[in-house]
Amino acid sequence: MQKYFVSENDFLNKRITGDDVFHIRSVMRYRIKDQILVSNQSKTVLCEIRSISDKEIGYEILCEENGNHELPFFTSIIQGYPKKDKLEDIIQHGTELGVSEIIPTIMKRSVFKLEEKKKESKRFRFMKIAKEAAEQSNRDRIPIIGDIQYLNQIDFSSYTVKLVCYEEEAKHANQSRLKEIVSSLKPNDRIAIVVGPEGGIAEEEIAFLKENGFIPVSLGKRILRTETVVFYCLSVLGYEWELL
Amino acid sequence: MQKYFVSENDFLNKRITGDDVFHIRSVMRYRIKDQILVSNQSKTVLCEIRSISDKEIGYEILCEENGNHELPFFTSIIQGYPKKDKLEDIIQHGTELGVSEIIPTIMKRSVFKLEEKKKESKRFRFMKIAKEAAEQSNRDRIPIIGDIQYLNQIDFSSYTVKLVCYEEEAKHANQSRLKEIVSSLKPNDRIAIVVGPEGGIAEEEIAFLKENGFIPVSLGKRILRTETVVFYCLSVLGYEWELL
Repeated sequence: MQKYFVSENDFLNKRITGDDVFHIRSVMRYRIKDQILVSNQSKTVLCEIRSISDKEIGYEILCEENGNHELPFFTSIIQGYPKKDKLEDIIQHGTELGVSEIIPTIMKRSVFKLEEKKKESKRFRFMKIAKEAAEQSNRDRIPIIGDIQYLNQIDFSSYTVKLVCYEEEAKHANQSRLKEIVSSLKPNDRIAIVVGPEGGIAEEEIAFLKENGFIPVSLGKRILRTETVVFYCLSVLGYEWELL
Repeated sequence: MQKYFVSENDFLNKRITGDDVFHIRSVMRYRIKDQILVSNQSKTVLCEIRSISDKEIGYEILCEENGNHELPFFTSIIQGYPKKDKLEDIIQHGTELGVSEIIPTIMKRSVFKLEEKKKESKRFRFMKIAKEAAEQSNRDRIPIIGDIQYLNQIDFSSYTVKLVCYEEEAKHANQSRLKEIVSSLKPNDRIAIVVGPEGGIAEEEIAFLKENGFIPVSLGKRILRTETVVFYCLSVLGYEWELL
């Protein structure tokens, strides 16, 4: 069943406004008496549609839903800004796989010109993709999309577990480090995972991250693209902690 | 270092022909004395480029490489034919993640018109994507791209472990089935994983698959898109068996 995230105000007033009205009317083609899920990100309710107009959908609440679709950790992907539309794929699939936060990060090898005036419109588009993916995948919360920033501007102090996916690490001995760390996580851990852009992570960035407590981990025997690294990390968190 | 898969004939004659010549000359801009990896899919050698012409690259072998970049299983994704270019993404990222075979499969809810005359050109394109992704990710072998076929045409008899990713299963009790199966695999197992197209798997298809020995598995608490299901399954196989 389709879920819609609404503002606190719309949740209190039992209505849906904005872009979702078009989605309900013209994409899903819902009619009066059809059922939908509505969430304010702290509570989800099963609802029956009672009124449909150009600008607003009205509904009545049938019952509260048991929201339990989140990973037991706060998981932040600190993503080296990639080429083309890859960040949109990362946000979309990352949301399905349970990411809590994505911070688009300009790293040394990012091929990205920072145009100040476009920063906010880009972030707005990313947030829209995250909201739609969260609705479609039945998340309880919409992931946070951070400001586009430089690696050395990020405040790492809130994270309890800090990992950096580093291809060179694959050549060294300790292949099992990721597995050891993932399998020994504790509920409410706050995990930060740094993923480099296409050209990888520069040596000085690795040094900087290590100084800040980041542990380099290998993801196995093959070279993965930047977006694939994200899918791998989030998949294994779910596999280790949700299939119980 | 960039790898190139060549035919048995080119391997014997220490040369590279075809599209890779353009890649070496104009994309990578390699010069004489630069090093590359060359593979015939059973052996990989480190080589030094000795001659560059319009149609052929010549090389000398420096040493044999220890090829060990494959999952310990034969893993086949039986992929419900998805919309748009999603199959290309699945082949590209699936190859990075170690898939052995992808069979594009027309299922009940596939939105796909089978044009016989385009079948071969599509498959040719898929094989090219698989080859390039295998080279970039440093695989030892190029995944097999099967013929586009209907679900009931596939011969399942060679597979020793048969799974079907089924969203409805997520509502039932046994959430841990995938983890139990993956963690108890044996080397040389041949795994078939059925992944539905966008609309999911029809009930009669699930019945058919169960009759053929397929076990329905859940992939956790969220609804994943068809391509994300593939990335998840292959990631967890690598996580469980490569990070040792």
